[in-house]
Amino acid sequence: MTHPLFEKHRAKLDTALNAIHTRGYWAAYNEMPSPKTYGETAPDDGKKAFEAHIGQQFELNQPGTTGWQGGENSPFGMELNVQYPVCDIEALITAGQTAMTGWQAAGVEGRTGLCIEMLDRLNAQSFEIAHAVMMTTGQGWMMAFQAGSPHAQDRGLEAVTYAYREQSFVPAEATWEKPQGKNPPLVMKKHFQIVGRGVAVVVGCGTFPTWNTYPGLFAALATGNAVIVKPHENAILPAAITVRTLRAVLAEHGIDPNLVTLCVPDKRETTQALVTHAAVKSVDFTGGNVFGQWLIDHCRQAQVYAELAGVNNIVIDSTDAYKPMLRNLAFTLSLYSGQMCTTSQALLVPAGGIDTEDGHKSYDEVCADLARAIDGFLAKPEVALAVLGAVQSADTLARIALADGGSLGQVLLASKKLDNPEFPKAEVRTPVLLACDAADEAAYMEERFGPITFVVKVADTAAAIALSERVIATHGALTAGIYSTRPEVIEAMTAATWRSKVALSINLTGAVFVNQSAAFSDYHGTGGNPAANASYSDSAFVANRFRVVQRRAHI
Amino acid sequence: MTHPLFEKHRAKLDTALNAIHTRGYWAAYNEMPSPKTYGETAPDDGKKAFEAHIGQQFELNQPGTTGWQGGENSPFGMELNVQYPVCDIEALITAGQTAMTGWQAAGVEGRTGLCIEMLDRLNAQSFEIAHAVMMTTGQGWMMAFQAGSPHAQDRGLEAVTYAYREQSFVPAEATWEKPQGKNPPLVMKKHFQIVGRGVAVVVGCGTFPTWNTYPGLFAALATGNAVIVKPHENAILPAAITVRTLRAVLAEHGIDPNLVTLCVPDKRETTQALVTHAAVKSVDFTGGNVFGQWLIDHCRQAQVYAELAGVNNIVIDSTDAYKPMLRNLAFTLSLYSGQMCTTSQALLVPAGGIDTEDGHKSYDEVCADLARAIDGFLAKPEVALAVLGAVQSADTLARIALADGGSLGQVLLASKKLDNPEFPKAEVRTPVLLACDAADEAAYMEERFGPITFVVKVADTAAAIALSERVIATHGALTAGIYSTRPEVIEAMTAATWRSKVALSINLTGAVFVNQSAAFSDYHGTGGNPAANASYSDSAFVANRFRVVQRRAHI
Repeated sequence: MTHPLFEKHRAKLDTALNAIHTRGYWAAYNEMPSPKTYGETAPDDGKKAFEAHIGQQFELNQPGTTGWQGGENSPFGMELNVQYPVCDIEALITAGQTAMTGWQAAGVEGRTGLCIEMLDRLNAQSFEIAHAVMMTTGQGWMMAFQAGSPHAQDRGLEAVTYAYREQSFVPAEATWEKPQGKNPPLVMKKHFQIVGRGVAVVVGCGTFPTWNTYPGLFAALATGNAVIVKPHENAILPAAITVRTLRAVLAEHGIDPNLVTLCVPDKRETTQALVTHAAVKSVDFTGGNVFGQWLIDHCRQAQVYAELAGVNNIVIDSTDAYKPMLRNLAFTLSLYSGQMCTTSQALLVPAGGIDTEDGHKSYDEVCADLARAIDGFLAKPEVALAVLGAVQSADTLARIALADGGSLGQVLLASKKLDNPEFPKAEVRTPVLLACDAADEAAYMEERFGPITFVVKVADTAAAIALSERVIATHGALTAGIYSTRPEVIEAMTAATWRSKVALSINLTGAVFVNQSAAFSDYHGTGGNPAANASYSDSAFVANRFRVVQRRAHI
Repeated sequence: MTHPLFEKHRAKLDTALNAIHTRGYWAAYNEMPSPKTYGETAPDDGKKAFEAHIGQQFELNQPGTTGWQGGENSPFGMELNVQYPVCDIEALITAGQTAMTGWQAAGVEGRTGLCIEMLDRLNAQSFEIAHAVMMTTGQGWMMAFQAGSPHAQDRGLEAVTYAYREQSFVPAEATWEKPQGKNPPLVMKKHFQIVGRGVAVVVGCGTFPTWNTYPGLFAALATGNAVIVKPHENAILPAAITVRTLRAVLAEHGIDPNLVTLCVPDKRETTQALVTHAAVKSVDFTGGNVFGQWLIDHCRQAQVYAELAGVNNIVIDSTDAYKPMLRNLAFTLSLYSGQMCTTSQALLVPAGGIDTEDGHKSYDEVCADLARAIDGFLAKPEVALAVLGAVQSADTLARIALADGGSLGQVLLASKKLDNPEFPKAEVRTPVLLACDAADEAAYMEERFGPITFVVKVADTAAAIALSERVIATHGALTAGIYSTRPEVIEAMTAATWRSKVALSINLTGAVFVNQSAAFSDYHGTGGNPAANASYSDSAFVANRFRVVQRRAHI
C-alpha cells in the first residue's frame, strides 16, 4: 500500500541513497541541454514559455492576495515587467499550517514520492527556468541552464534523499515486550508519528535563485513542513515558476497546494514579520552577512540555516603544471564574474615566489602571469561573454569600481567593460586583479563579492597556511585551495582545513574548478566556519526539521 | 585494520543499531542489581568504593588545578565532605582542544569502541555510582541503581549508536569519475574527514546526575569532541566518578585523558565564562528555565541542547479500570517525590465527572479517590520510603510548604513528613494533591517541581484536550497522558499531541508509568515544545555535533 509516486520514483531514490552514501559521481538530471534528454522542441518550448511570462501578471491563486508587484531589473537589460501577487503573510502562514495536516498524513513515502515528482516536473521545465535564471541573475546561458536547472534539481533531490533516509529510519510502530522474570512480560504497542516542525521560510538570493533555494525548500517540504518561498527582489521569476509547479503537483495529487506559497513582500518590514512569526520554525537563507546575522539574532523561534559571506582563498606554494594552474585560476576567477559564494578572493603567494616545472617564479612574476592568463582566457569575446555573463547588482559594479581605483591594492589587471551585441544594455565586466601585502588585512579580509581578487604576498608557505586558517576561522569560507608539489605542505594545509573546517581542492589544473561543487559528491559548505552554519548535503541539514511524536498503550 | 575495541564491542553495537531502528524492548545493561550479572561481591565492593570517597580529595590529575572545593548536601543527611579539584577553565579548554587531535585520528570506529568500553566500565561500577547518585539526589536505592547506572548507561549507548550510524554513513573516501562524452572521464579522489565541532560542555542537573548527563556526554564524545562536565553543585560525585573512569579508559588506550574533564567552578561567573567561551561549540543542559534560557540567549557561539521545565499533564475522560488507574497515578505521583522532569503535574478532569466500569464518578469523587489511592499506596512505611526517597533541595521543600498552605488550590491531600529510621536527617515528603479550576491558570500553569499535583476541573473532555494542547504548546511538557474508553477521544488527544509535540501514554493501568521513558524504545522528549529543544534519542541529537571536511585532488 505504498504511495504510487513512491513506487514510480523508487529506483531513482534507491540510486540517490547509494550516491549520498558513496559520494562518487552521480547526477539524476542531465546537465547538458541535450535534445535526446529534454526533447527536440524543449529549447524552443522553454524559451516561449519564458517569454510568455514577460509583461504579465504571474497568477498563483494564493490566499490573501492584496495586490501585485514586480520590478526585477535584468542584468542583461531585458525588460521583464512581470507582476507577482502580494499576499498577506498571516493568510500564507495559516494556509500553510492547514495544509500541513494532509501533508503529514501522506507519510514519508508519500511526501518523498511527491517531492521527486515535483523535481521531475521542474526538470521538464529546465529551459524555461534557465531563461528566467539567466535574465534575472546575469548568468551566462550554459551556467544558467546547468546551475539553474539540473544542478539545482540534483541538490533538491539530494536533500529529499537525506530526508528520506532519516525519516524512514524511524519505525511507524513497535511492539515493546519487556520480560518480567517468571511473570508475563509487559507488552505495549507504540506508534511513532513524524511531524514537521512548522511553517518553513526559504529566503532566496539574487545570484542563484534555484540552486541555493532548492536544498532548503525540499529539505523542509520532505520532512513534513509547509514552505513559504521569499525570493530575492531581483530574482523572483525562477522562484515563482517553481512554486507554481509545486502547487500544481500537490493539487493534482490531492494535497492542499497552499503547502507551498510565494511571498513577495511589499516592504522590508513584511519580510521581518514573516521570518520572526511564532509559527515559523525554520528559515533557510543565502546571502550577505548583514541580513543573515539579523536573521540569526532575531529569528529565535526558528532553526536558521544560513549561508553568509566568506573569504575563499588558495595557498600557492609550488606547482608542476604552472600554465594549467594559471588557466584553471583564470577560469575560476572569471566564471559569472566571480559572483559565486565559492569564488576565490585571496590567493596567498610566498614573498619569495614559487617553484614550478618551468623554474622559479617570483611573486611579481606570478602576479603578472596570472593577469596575463586571465586576459588571454577572455581574449575571445564569445568566450568572455559566455563565461562572464553580466553583473547582477549595482553594489557589485560599485565594488569593481572601488577596486579598479587602486585604493585596495596595486591593480595588476583592471576590469574592462565588454559589449554584448545580443544584449546591448548588459553590464559585462572582466575581473580586477590586485596585489597586496598580508598586512593589508582591511583590504582582502572581508568579502568583496564579485570579480575582485587579491594576490596576497605572504612571508612563506607556512605563513600562508596559517593565514588561510585564520581567515577562514574568523571570516569564513566555502572553498579553499592549495597548489603544491610537496606532500608535507599538502598535509599541513589539510590539517589546517580540519581546524578551520573548509573544503579543500588540491592542485586543480584541469577541468574541475575550486568554485564548483557537485551534488551527491561534494559537501557544499561544512557548516563549521562563519561562512555557513550548515552543510547543504548532510544529515544535520534535515534531521532537525521534523520531530517524532510517540504514543504508547498496552495491547 | 579496525580498532580492537570496535571489534570487541561490535556485537553489542549491532544489536543497539537494530534497537534504535526497531525501538522495541532492548537494554544493554541489566537494570536488576543481580549478582549473576554484576558478581556476588559487587554490592559490597560498590558500597566500599563509594565510602572510600567520603571525606577525601577526589584526585583527577587535571591541568590547571588551583584548589579544592566540595560542599554537597545529602538529602539523606549523610556527611559527604568530598573535595573536588577546581581547575582554570582556560587550561581545561586548551587541554581539551589539544586532545581532540588524537581523538579525531582514532576515527569513527576507534571512538565508538572506546565509548562502549567506557560504558562497560561504568557498568562494572554500577553499585558505586548508584550509592553516589542516591546520596546526592535523594533517590531511593532501587531507583538510584536503575536510573543512575544501567538506564543511564543505556542512554549513553543509545547516543553512541546514533552517533555511529550518522558518522559511519559518511564514506572515508570516494572516487569521483565524471563521464566526458568521447573524452576520458574527469577523475578525482575525494577524502571526507569527520571533525568534531569543538569543545563541548555538559551541564548536569541535581536530580539525575548521570541519566541526564550521559546522552550529551557520549553524543559529544562519540562525534569527536572534547567534553567538559560541569555537574550540579549538589551532585558532583557521580559525575566525578564517571569522568575519572573515562579518563582512565582513554589513557589506557593511548588517548590524551584531558579529552574529558570535570569543571567544579568556584563561582557562577566561572560557569558563565565557560559556556560562552568562543572555543565551546556545544552545551548540553538539563534544569530550570532561568539558567536554561540564559544559556540559549547567551551561548550564541554554541549549539545548545536544553531540557527545561514543563507542565506535564493527563486528560482523564473515562476508564474501564478505575482502581488500577488510580494505583498507577498514585505510583507516578509518589515516585522520587515527583522530582522527575516527566512527573505529571496537572490532571485534567471534566467538571461533570467520568464514566468508569464502577459507574459514574463525579469530579469530587475522582479527587477523593485519588487522594485515598495515594494515601493507601504509601501506607506501608517501607514502601513509602523506598518509593519517595528524599527531597533534593530546599526549594522543593518550600514549594511543598506553599502548596500545603492552600494558596494554590484546595488541599485534597496534604504532604506528610515521614521518618526514615536508617537516615534520621532525611527530608522525606509524601505528595500534596490540590484541586483547582481550569481558570486558575496561575496556579497550575507553571512548573512546580516536586510532589505537587493539581486535579484541574475542566468544562468537558474536549476542553481538557484543548487545554492540554495549549499548556504544552506554551509551557512545554515531556509527557502527556490520556485515560479514555472512547476511541474518538483517544484520536482527538493523539492529534492534539501531534500539534503540541509531546509523547502520549494511553490508559496506563499496570506496571508502566507515564513518567518512565525506556532507552532504545521511547523518544525522551520530542524537542518540539518549550520543555526541550532536542530529543535525547534521535539523529538530530548527534548529527550537528560533527562536520565533514573534504579534500579532493585529481588522481
